[in-house]
Amino acid sequence: MTPHLTPQADPAKGAAVKAADRAHVFHSWSAQELIDPLAVAGAEGAYFWDYEGNRYLDFTSGLVYTNIGYQHPKVVAAVQEQAGKMTTFAPAFAIDVRSEAARLIAERTPGDLDKIFFTNGGAEAVENAARMARIHTGRPKIMSAYRSYHGATAAAINLTGDPRRWASDNGSAGVVRFWAPFLYRSPFYAETEAEECARALQHLEDTVAFENPNSIAAIILETVPGTAGIMTPPPGYLAGVREICDRYGIVLVLDEVMAGFGRTGAWFAADHYDVVPDLLTFAKGVNSGYVPLGGVAISSAIAETFAKKPYPGGLTYSGHPLACAAAVATLETMAEERIVEHAAHIGEHVLGPGLRELAERHPSVGEVRGLGVFWALDLVRNQETREPLVPYNATGAANAPMAEFAAACKRSGLWPFVNMNRTHAVPACTVSEAEAKEGLAILDEALSVTDKHVVG
Amino acid sequence: MTPHLTPQADPAKGAAVKAADRAHVFHSWSAQELIDPLAVAGAEGAYFWDYEGNRYLDFTSGLVYTNIGYQHPKVVAAVQEQAGKMTTFAPAFAIDVRSEAARLIAERTPGDLDKIFFTNGGAEAVENAARMARIHTGRPKIMSAYRSYHGATAAAINLTGDPRRWASDNGSAGVVRFWAPFLYRSPFYAETEAEECARALQHLEDTVAFENPNSIAAIILETVPGTAGIMTPPPGYLAGVREICDRYGIVLVLDEVMAGFGRTGAWFAADHYDVVPDLLTFAKGVNSGYVPLGGVAISSAIAETFAKKPYPGGLTYSGHPLACAAAVATLETMAEERIVEHAAHIGEHVLGPGLRELAERHPSVGEVRGLGVFWALDLVRNQETREPLVPYNATGAANAPMAEFAAACKRSGLWPFVNMNRTHAVPACTVSEAEAKEGLAILDEALSVTDKHVVG
Ligand SMILES: Cc1ncc(COP(=O)(O)O)c(C=O)c1O
Ligand SMILES: Cc1ncc(COP(=O)(O)O)c(C=O)c1O
Repeated sequence: MTPHLTPQADPAKGAAVKAADRAHVFHSWSAQELIDPLAVAGAEGAYFWDYEGNRYLDFTSGLVYTNIGYQHPKVVAAVQEQAGKMTTFAPAFAIDVRSEAARLIAERTPGDLDKIFFTNGGAEAVENAARMARIHTGRPKIMSAYRSYHGATAAAINLTGDPRRWASDNGSAGVVRFWAPFLYRSPFYAETEAEECARALQHLEDTVAFENPNSIAAIILETVPGTAGIMTPPPGYLAGVREICDRYGIVLVLDEVMAGFGRTGAWFAADHYDVVPDLLTFAKGVNSGYVPLGGVAISSAIAETFAKKPYPGGLTYSGHPLACAAAVATLETMAEERIVEHAAHIGEHVLGPGLRELAERHPSVGEVRGLGVFWALDLVRNQETREPLVPYNATGAANAPMAEFAAACKRSGLWPFVNMNRTHAVPACTVSEAEAKEGLAILDEALSVTDKHVVG
Repeated sequence: MTPHLTPQADPAKGAAVKAADRAHVFHSWSAQELIDPLAVAGAEGAYFWDYEGNRYLDFTSGLVYTNIGYQHPKVVAAVQEQAGKMTTFAPAFAIDVRSEAARLIAERTPGDLDKIFFTNGGAEAVENAARMARIHTGRPKIMSAYRSYHGATAAAINLTGDPRRWASDNGSAGVVRFWAPFLYRSPFYAETEAEECARALQHLEDTVAFENPNSIAAIILETVPGTAGIMTPPPGYLAGVREICDRYGIVLVLDEVMAGFGRTGAWFAADHYDVVPDLLTFAKGVNSGYVPLGGVAISSAIAETFAKKPYPGGLTYSGHPLACAAAVATLETMAEERIVEHAAHIGEHVLGPGLRELAERHPSVGEVRGLGVFWALDLVRNQETREPLVPYNATGAANAPMAEFAAACKRSGLWPFVNMNRTHAVPACTVSEAEAKEGLAILDEALSVTDKHVVG
């Protein structure tokens, strides 16, 4: 941390910020009177700090989006420069940074995904991918996995498997859900990766067949499911899904909102699996959220559908110049500073080995999964039975072991990502070896808390 | 225009920007190969310019969102300063500019709409308002007007009346559409405003009754419908809708995404009609789109529903610090520079009288409607029959009269807003008297083109 950013404790200011928040800010996914949001004073690189003088190593990257770290000077400078030139302009025009951001994204996306439709975030990207697939195929249904998160607008939340869907469920109109591979908790009673892969493909194929293949517009999958638990797909699974899609004329949508732009140690997670989707949704890492931006990368076949016939979707801030300028700077800087390669290195040499080493010593760690700077610890009450440390979607007392774990991390200066019975280690792609090791040491300590809940 | 921003023609750069756009940018609401986006080099105040040295007076404010004009120095400076401090931070924390933006918005919204849920834009605001209303009431249906636009995500586009809905229509699941008042093209055969108001309320009341009042979660209305034609509601209409909502326990949602933050010469259009909704959706003018931002202002009764029970919605960039900093600067500057009052003045003394004067001389002008910097000219083939100058949703040759009109405006340096048989005069709230008069003079010329299509 550079000296001018050393945390200056200012508890009075912190209290005022908190009070103003409680008076007027309505928070996402929360019971408004039961939350106690930490007032944050500043952030740089892999850290942020509060007004009490506490600094936290951010093992969440916000909501897994600040891939380039907080306040990267090159991206900040690009945002400032663009603000001075042209902060905003309507979508129907050609704007230099808009074109350049699209070009840089298209250059990185796999295959012929060369046309970019910009949105403000991930949910809108998924909404538009769903619309494109339905119109391109003329078919009504979209298939998605139970262990998934695709956003919170109506189409995106209904494609989501996560229980955050439940309150907004439309009764599955236009959606067919299926089970994706997850060997550690196999829906298919498989014992090897190859078996899990084969059975998951058979399940998908059977479900497509019984639903009527001609009714399926798209299959949407997170290339590596994120919030649901970072289940890296077994070798051959995505290629098999691609093959099913090809066979039945189904659009393959890979949602790389969380997995894309360096998170897995590649530009896209799809690069690891050698699969090219027809549509790829992105957001988050594209500009590390310095300015809201998301989008859909579109294959030439689908772009062709909307060559002479209007695409019936849009939004006021599609291709927002300030957001695009942040993307240009982010993508150029990630290339110049070899940040994607760095994320791969941290995964292979620090986080991967370090987390596996923790798993050997801590009976509450059931499985370590991941790659790059995208790791999950699946915590259990018992390594044999694999019973989750807390039940699915637990709250209150039932969730106490995970709450105690999170509190222990925070006391030691690590801000952890916690979801159900898992903690994810998802720092910035720019996290240094020393910082990653600092995080591992704190996790080591905090896992002694979850170990106490191991039974049998 | 300040000297350093004098348009410098650079056609070669313009051609390159256009070519890069055509190669990689997929545009909203367009047949990708049939469009020819103008490459824009810069913008300031009420103007923008291309690379050929042409400057345009922007009578569209982008998509009716740059209420404070392009590149307002105070907002630009605030964005630059915030970028240097904290570009982004996740939604679950208390952040100074996030709280302050919420406070300034809550201070301006009518009644007890004191809690602010932030989104990236208007569609997400409507999505969340719909979810809040459904959960608050436990009822499934939302009623919306045929002449409306509410955004392009699944719930928002289905609440939309505009034909842009058609391609994404879910078969009206959970949506009931009704007719709102529009005396000039009365759905109710009314001849006076009072009659139109009474009949529109009777129609709404009857529709609620026959649908089952206990099945209606919300009625959503643009306070003054924007894209659909700037139909200012007759006196008493919105109060009557409020009364129907109260009687049946229905949530009233006013969509002020376009009408809010100065557009009508008031902070909110609702202020003109003395009505307080339960939820108010906003975006656009809140920070003039310098950074994508939208949201929902929430009544205390609805906030109470989510006090102890989690609100099941959210998004990665809710309360984005850079967007909130732009909102704080925009709202403070609009107050300091009396920009809302200025918009009212321009409406009363320049645009209103000027447009009515054009209507007297041009047989193709059927009606002038509006207030503030929010005006529509309803163009007709015949003032007696009121037949629209082009048919509803016309394209190609059928739309030629409007296309000719737009081309004539552009040739004379005015960028016009055109939708079906209407042109809207919707410049920045900061437009000067001289600029507004320049726009009127160009419209005067261009209306001679539409006059040629008058028949009978
Ligand atoms: C895979 C995936 N898709 C979509 C989304 C939704 O993105 P947003 O929150 O920007 O709407 C998320 C958000 O976490 C995500 O992880
Ligand atoms: C009244 C109204 N509501 C909602 C929207 C959708 O906003 P956005 O384009 O930011 O999603 C618009 C956009 O024009 C609008 O005019």
